[in-house]
Parts: sequence; C-alpha cells; structure tokens
Amino acid sequence: MPLLVVGSVAFDSIQTPAATRERVLGGSAVFFSYSASYFAPVRLVGVVGEDWPSEHSELLQKRNIDTAGLHVVQGGKTFFWKGKYLPNMNDRETLEVQLNVFGDFKPTLPEHFRRSDFVFLANGSPVTQLKTLEQVQQPKLVVADTMDLWIREQHAGLMELMRRVDGLVMNDSEAKLLTGEENLVAAGHKVLELGPKFVVIKKGEHGAMFFSKHETYVLPAFPTDRVVDPTGAGDSFAGGMMGYLAAKNSFEPKVLKEAMAYGILVASFNVEDFSLDRLKQIDRSDLDLRMEKYRKMLSF
Amino acid sequence: MPLLVVGSVAFDSIQTPAATRERVLGGSAVFFSYSASYFAPVRLVGVVGEDWPSEHSELLQKRNIDTAGLHVVQGGKTFFWKGKYLPNMNDRETLEVQLNVFGDFKPTLPEHFRRSDFVFLANGSPVTQLKTLEQVQQPKLVVADTMDLWIREQHAGLMELMRRVDGLVMNDSEAKLLTGEENLVAAGHKVLELGPKFVVIKKGEHGAMFFSKHETYVLPAFPTDRVVDPTGAGDSFAGGMMGYLAAKNSFEPKVLKEAMAYGILVASFNVEDFSLDRLKQIDRSDLDLRMEKYRKMLSF
Repeated sequence: MPLLVVGSVAFDSIQTPAATRERVLGGSAVFFSYSASYFAPVRLVGVVGEDWPSEHSELLQKRNIDTAGLHVVQGGKTFFWKGKYLPNMNDRETLEVQLNVFGDFKPTLPEHFRRSDFVFLANGSPVTQLKTLEQVQQPKLVVADTMDLWIREQHAGLMELMRRVDGLVMNDSEAKLLTGEENLVAAGHKVLELGPKFVVIKKGEHGAMFFSKHETYVLPAFPTDRVVDPTGAGDSFAGGMMGYLAAKNSFEPKVLKEAMAYGILVASFNVEDFSLDRLKQIDRSDLDLRMEKYRKMLSF
Repeated sequence: MPLLVVGSVAFDSIQTPAATRERVLGGSAVFFSYSASYFAPVRLVGVVGEDWPSEHSELLQKRNIDTAGLHVVQGGKTFFWKGKYLPNMNDRETLEVQLNVFGDFKPTLPEHFRRSDFVFLANGSPVTQLKTLEQVQQPKLVVADTMDLWIREQHAGLMELMRRVDGLVMNDSEAKLLTGEENLVAAGHKVLELGPKFVVIKKGEHGAMFFSKHETYVLPAFPTDRVVDPTGAGDSFAGGMMGYLAAKNSFEPKVLKEAMAYGILVASFNVEDFSLDRLKQIDRSDLDLRMEKYRKMLSF
C-alpha cells in the first residue's frame, strides 16, 4: 500500500563534538520517506526553494519515493536548520532557524496522492496537518507527529488533531509537557484519553514505548557506540514503522509491534552517520540481519 | 548455593512528592538479601546499632536469610539516610547522612560464611570490599557494586577491586564518571578493560545493559506507572540477579540473561511501595507471573 507523508524538507548544518557538516539534506519528510522506502512506496509532500538541487529529488526517486508533491517555490529558499549537539549526543541547541518557504507551506496533494491508505503527518503545525488530512479520501490509518512548539502554542488545534488521528508519535519530553505527568507510562495513558487509538513515545537512546487500550510495552534501542549524528532519528523511526505497516497493509497489534521494532532498527542505522549517509549504504537485508540480532538480544 | 552479601543496613527517611516515611528499614544489604531470598538462601554481613529492633532481623530470618553476620554494636546507632525524590522520581537529594556504626564497619565473616560460592559486595568502600573478599575461600563468582563517591575518592582501591571481581554492577551516571564516556555502550566496554569479565549498567526506569567480551545487550525495565519509592531499586535488581545465579549454580551467558531479567522484575516490584513493603506482599509465583508478561512484551 502506498504511504503518504507530509512534512519538512530541509538543509541542516550540524555540529557534534566530533565533526561538523554544512547544509546537508534533512527534514522530517526526507528522513521519514527514505526510511519507509525499505518497505513500501512513498508519496512525499513538502516544499523547497529554488536552491534545491535536483540530485536530492533524484536520490529520493531512485528509492521509489514519488516526489510529485514536492513543491518548488521559484525565488524562495529551502527551510534551514542549524544545530549543535551536546557531548551526551542527545540534548541539542538550535543555533539558527530560517523557515523560508516552509513558513508559508500550504500542502496541496496531487490528485493521485488523495487516495492513500496510510498517512503520516510529520512535523508541522496542527492546522497544516489537519488541512492535509482533509484532502485524503478515506485513509485506513493516520498517524501524526507533534512537537513542543505546538503543544505550547497551538493547544486547541492539537486537541482537534488528536481526535482525528489513529496514532500519535511523540518524544518523552513532549509527552510529559502535554500531560503534566513525569511518569511516562502514566503520560502515555493520558494521551490515549485525548483521542488516538495508539500512542508511541520515543525515548531516544532508550527505545520506544507503545500504548493502546489493551497493551503497554517498551522496546529498547539497539545498543550502539557509533552515534555520529542523531538528527532525524525520530523521523527514521516513524518511517520504518509506517513503511512496515503499509507493506503489511495491516495495523493489528502483532504487526504494530514488529513495525515498532523495524522503526527502532532503521533509526539505529540512521544515527551512524550524518544526513542520509548511512541509510544510503544499507538495504533491506541489512535491516533484516539487525532484526535477527535484535530478536536474539530480547530472547532469554 | 548460598549467596553472601556484605553491605549497608540502614534506617531511611524518605520524602517523595506524594508521601513521607520516617526511619523505615533500608540499606543495600537489606534490599539485596530480601530480593535474593526469592531464589536462594542468603548470608548477610552488616552492622547495626543498639537501636536496631529485633523484628527487623526476624523479618529477614523468616526469608531464609542468615543474619549471623549482622553485627550489633552496643552503644552505637544504625546508619541513617534521609533523602528527597524530585518529581521525576529518578533524581534525588540527600538531606542527611549519619554513618554511625557503618563508618567504622570492618566486616568479619562468621566461620560458616567463609565458604560461599556466590558473593556480592554491595555499597561500601573498595577497601572494605577487598577486606571482605580476602575472607572468602575460593568463591565461584564475585560481583561488586560501586558508587560515585569511591570513583572520585578511592580510585586506586577501586582499580584494585576491579581486577579481583568477576562482575561489576553500577548505574549509568557512575559508568560515565568512571570512563569519561558519554555513550553507555562505549562506557561499558571501557569498564570491561579494567578487569571484570562482565559489567552491568543500571539505567533506572530504562532498564539495564550487559557487557562481556562476547555479548552486549540491553533489557528494558518493566513498564509501570506505580512508582512510589525507588530507594533500593538497584540493590533489588542485584539481589534478584545474584539470587537467580546462585539458585542455578551457574553464570553461563544464558543464565546470566535470565538473571538480569529477574533482577529487573524484582526491582519493578520493589519501587511499588516504600522500604520492603511491596516485596513483603509477593512470592516467587508473582515474579514468575510478571516474567511471563515480560517475555511476552519482548516477543514479536
């Protein structure tokens, strides 16, 4: 089943304690699409400026990512983010943000994108996410990401979004912020009460938790000492998860758990280098090999 | 196989955001012994003052914990710790410490304790831990805990200890402090180079990691929203782990992983109430039931 994603497409300048990269390919929709493409065809909706090199589009197209929804604004500049990771490689500071064309982003879905069974609303305001959703005809599964900015500044819109989606993906600090709960299990259950049928709380190096009415579980991250750049880890996780669900055309509990695990593993590769550099080197068989190790790690 | 533990026996006064308890039973050797007692007979070595009520000893004895090594100092007072948990129930402040008789603790093992195959050196200075170890004849497996204080102030003694033990258990912040590594996988491998054949890094609500020359893995904590008092969670973990190893009279890799899992589950019960209050309510069958759920959680 084709999978639709709407989100940011960006240039990232990244500083880590060990290295620096300038204006590399990034953005939530990019990390998501590439990660999902190991499993299913992807339809990308986003916006870029005329500084966008066609090689980037070609890179995505080669992975069976349909970029018909990637709008190029003539005279505009692509969203730019500059950030610096602290020595723990988890906390980061934003040094500079230029929203550019992403600031006025009003997604319009190409005609052939409107029938998409699986939909992921990546990083964007709840208003933008809802406007996108209105253009999709009878989706089977809609999952959204959100972030601290919208929890603080667009609370009403976010509440409306929560009632309209099947699943919500957020990170641990955002779940605490949204619910006022310090305990993540309590926080997960509180988010469920706001509408979604399931909630995934990402914990970075500590893995991810899943919550539904009937199930609560946690899966650890794949342990690695090769953390070069965590940018896009959360979007890679979501891409792997949604890609697997779309491939299986299912979101029954058993498939959801497998999807969570694949999400964790795609993310574990993603952090091993800057931008998409590590993902470009691997294929589905590398993921399946790591899955074997991961299953073994969790068996006793 | 009998399991020997040497560590602190204490009165704890505890403040959490929800409740307060005064002078409840605590100490590393107490949490460890009680947790290990679900699996194997335990021999406890520690020191208390004349303020120690005999009911506490009886509570332990009823669990097949041999308290012949619990030295009562007439005219002395028992180690006292007062602490306050922050709203995240993970970070805590020490409000007061009275070392009392524990300050001059020089463990002397009763004759029948000297042949113990499984030994756990709980919270204590490396010097004390080494002096204890010298009294044990040909132990099969020696595991030690350590803490930030000794890493900072008794570095040479700690290095000596590391060369003498089979396993080391420590928490995440201590592993980072000891190695200067922010990445826990890198930190675990660095600790291995200091001597121990295996290292366990406890991550609190995020579970625990295991490192040996041949294996690296992480097991998540059992998810719970019922965290009443985390005091003793690390010692309960170690008690469950060592108790299981002693019961199986083995520390081969397969058994070690099962032992880690039992440690995680005993700790998950321990945090559900103050002191030993929750552990007093459960028996081995409750642990096995939770183990079934835990295995199911990690299967997909």
